[in-house]
Amino acid sequence: MSVPELMAGIGRAARAAADKLALASTVVKNRALQAAADALRSHRHRILAANERDLREAEASAAPSSAPLLDRLRLDEKRVLAMAAALEEVAALPDPIGTILAEWSRPNGIVIQRRRVPLGVVGIIYESRPNVTADAGALCLKSSNAVILRGGSESQRSNAAIHASLEQGLEVAGLPRSAIQLVPTTDRAAVGVMLADMRGSIDVIVPRGGKGLIERVRNEARVPVIGHLEGVCHVYVDRDADLTMARQIVLNAKLRRTGVCGAAETLLVDNAVAATHLQPLVCALLDAGCAVRGDAATMAVDARVTAATEADWSTEYLDAIIAARVVDGVDAAMAHIAQYGSKHTDSIVTGNAATAERFLARVDSAIVLHNASTQFADGGEFGMGAEIGISTDKFHARGPVGVEQLTSYKYVVRGAGQIRD
Amino acid sequence: MSVPELMAGIGRAARAAADKLALASTVVKNRALQAAADALRSHRHRILAANERDLREAEASAAPSSAPLLDRLRLDEKRVLAMAAALEEVAALPDPIGTILAEWSRPNGIVIQRRRVPLGVVGIIYESRPNVTADAGALCLKSSNAVILRGGSESQRSNAAIHASLEQGLEVAGLPRSAIQLVPTTDRAAVGVMLADMRGSIDVIVPRGGKGLIERVRNEARVPVIGHLEGVCHVYVDRDADLTMARQIVLNAKLRRTGVCGAAETLLVDNAVAATHLQPLVCALLDAGCAVRGDAATMAVDARVTAATEADWSTEYLDAIIAARVVDGVDAAMAHIAQYGSKHTDSIVTGNAATAERFLARVDSAIVLHNASTQFADGGEFGMGAEIGISTDKFHARGPVGVEQLTSYKYVVRGAGQIRD
Repeated sequence: MSVPELMAGIGRAARAAADKLALASTVVKNRALQAAADALRSHRHRILAANERDLREAEASAAPSSAPLLDRLRLDEKRVLAMAAALEEVAALPDPIGTILAEWSRPNGIVIQRRRVPLGVVGIIYESRPNVTADAGALCLKSSNAVILRGGSESQRSNAAIHASLEQGLEVAGLPRSAIQLVPTTDRAAVGVMLADMRGSIDVIVPRGGKGLIERVRNEARVPVIGHLEGVCHVYVDRDADLTMARQIVLNAKLRRTGVCGAAETLLVDNAVAATHLQPLVCALLDAGCAVRGDAATMAVDARVTAATEADWSTEYLDAIIAARVVDGVDAAMAHIAQYGSKHTDSIVTGNAATAERFLARVDSAIVLHNASTQFADGGEFGMGAEIGISTDKFHARGPVGVEQLTSYKYVVRGAGQIRD
Repeated sequence: MSVPELMAGIGRAARAAADKLALASTVVKNRALQAAADALRSHRHRILAANERDLREAEASAAPSSAPLLDRLRLDEKRVLAMAAALEEVAALPDPIGTILAEWSRPNGIVIQRRRVPLGVVGIIYESRPNVTADAGALCLKSSNAVILRGGSESQRSNAAIHASLEQGLEVAGLPRSAIQLVPTTDRAAVGVMLADMRGSIDVIVPRGGKGLIERVRNEARVPVIGHLEGVCHVYVDRDADLTMARQIVLNAKLRRTGVCGAAETLLVDNAVAATHLQPLVCALLDAGCAVRGDAATMAVDARVTAATEADWSTEYLDAIIAARVVDGVDAAMAHIAQYGSKHTDSIVTGNAATAERFLARVDSAIVLHNASTQFADGGEFGMGAEIGISTDKFHARGPVGVEQLTSYKYVVRGAGQIRD
């Protein structure tokens, strides 16, 4: 069978499953999630064996620099059990489907409801991390969407083993197995078909991956996309910042985990407090093992600081590296963020409420914070439950994409024979 | 200047204006709308003269069948005054921007707000009706979006004259004139540039026009689109329908105005009441001047009914023509709607509450109605104020697209030094 034929069949099965899922009860969906969690636990040795084969192949063909890739790919018993627990957490979330978002009546007596409904069929294109198979499958199921999962070729065996547990969960609950499908080929043509040719069978695509994937999605997508661009996140330390608070936030924002999209990549320090604040902040970062690439003022405070190039200001390092510079107050900080940022997550540290409000109102990012770490950019930290990612789009979903963001709505109108004048 | 250069300049000006509009107060925006309404009234003779020239040119080059086009293009004093009144109605709408959509705190003490913000820059591509210039300009301004208007070449002089009044309103209020720009060339290449090359300077495109335009948008768009497909709307008359109510709803849904997207195009009658209901419904339509294209059962009730072809079931006539057939109950009606409908607006007439709920839950359309006319598919009738159109997409906006649907949101997080564990 050709890749387009294969994908067309997957699309048809997904649409049929979506029609059933739209009417599935919360109890049944949760039963499937619980059964899938149980299956993950009982099949964990099979999953780890599949992962071992993926790892061996990846190691054999890997470049020496690909340690982070191997780390993302690697599963162990703890990670599999965490995946199972994540499914149970999704089961525990409120069901978004069927919720009445608003209800009002009109002078002519018709009553209008805005009712939450699923999007339909979601396509997920992702790389290396096998846990996305379980997470994305669970979030789509909870929001009554059918999902077509297209994982990276390097994790195909791990994904297939995890996917088998999800299918088992669906079967136990009496839901169609095609509610969660894994594309069974590693042929990259399948991605092209999903992006360009499956309008009508895929309602939205969520890409999860590096710049190469994002670029491909941008160029080829004819299906709506919830975009996840990079997170070039900033911490701006204002003239009215408390130094102790600033130091804690900067260290946490940069170093708590460097590989997440909410990790800070650039430190901006107000010129008015550069004399007092810049050196302690930069030294704290350096002492904690973080490389600092700075402007002239930053280089002057410590010999370990290297020179930042223009490219550094727009780089998402995802590593223990930070770019740092002095700016002339909050307006210059905002101008820097507007020029180099990625509209993901940005934080101001200040004791001045007016300055904070100015920053919060004017910085055009999905998440803006005052006196808090950028690492809070996370659906779980927001209390929204699990997430597929953080959208840097303004269209449809912005910020953390959880079960609610995977929905649409319809208008339900009830009358008693009303006609329009 | 080449078209791409021209459009790039328009894009830059729009982005700069959007940054200002995002911070504009409600009072200032409303002042601009009011001043634009005043300007439309005082320049109405100039606008009508421009329209006269558009009309003369269109008539000279027009095919004999283009009377509806000329009617859509034609302005008179009443229509210009209605445009001005529409601007005042938009001014009277609540300002969606800055609204706190939700606010909650987390156990660690951070307080999270979801705050409504503009999308940024909206592109509108439309045909013939010059009033779209005023309506779309006003809705975008009220929602703090800059807008790039690209009207049809046949209405270019009318659009330019209307646009001059909008610019005057912006100037009176001290807002940038480039908040509402009209593409000054009729070169169709400008549409291609908007669709494919202005990602980054246009945040969303709203097409308003016929099948040719919609098809072009589908094929060429790289910018997010709020789609307005056709309205193949159905009225299903169930076995438990009251005949008098059904007749009123069917006549209104089809004939109140035949040229609107919420006009019914297909009548479905339950086989169980075909003997009593079909003939009266079909005769009422025929007697009111509506052509009926039916299946065998429908042809049997009146000699004036002609045979429906397969194509009729998916045709948006926008004219006094209806397709009609007998179906075997509500499930068959829903199967017909799923196969041939356009997910726009569909109505059931029945006295049976369970049947109605089944239809309302399962028909996957933006608007589903029980015992009410499909002609209620309208933002004004929903109490949402003016609208740019009815979205048949599930992504971002579904149903009537008014000022709220032209917005996004951001998360504003306030802390007291919180860092993440």
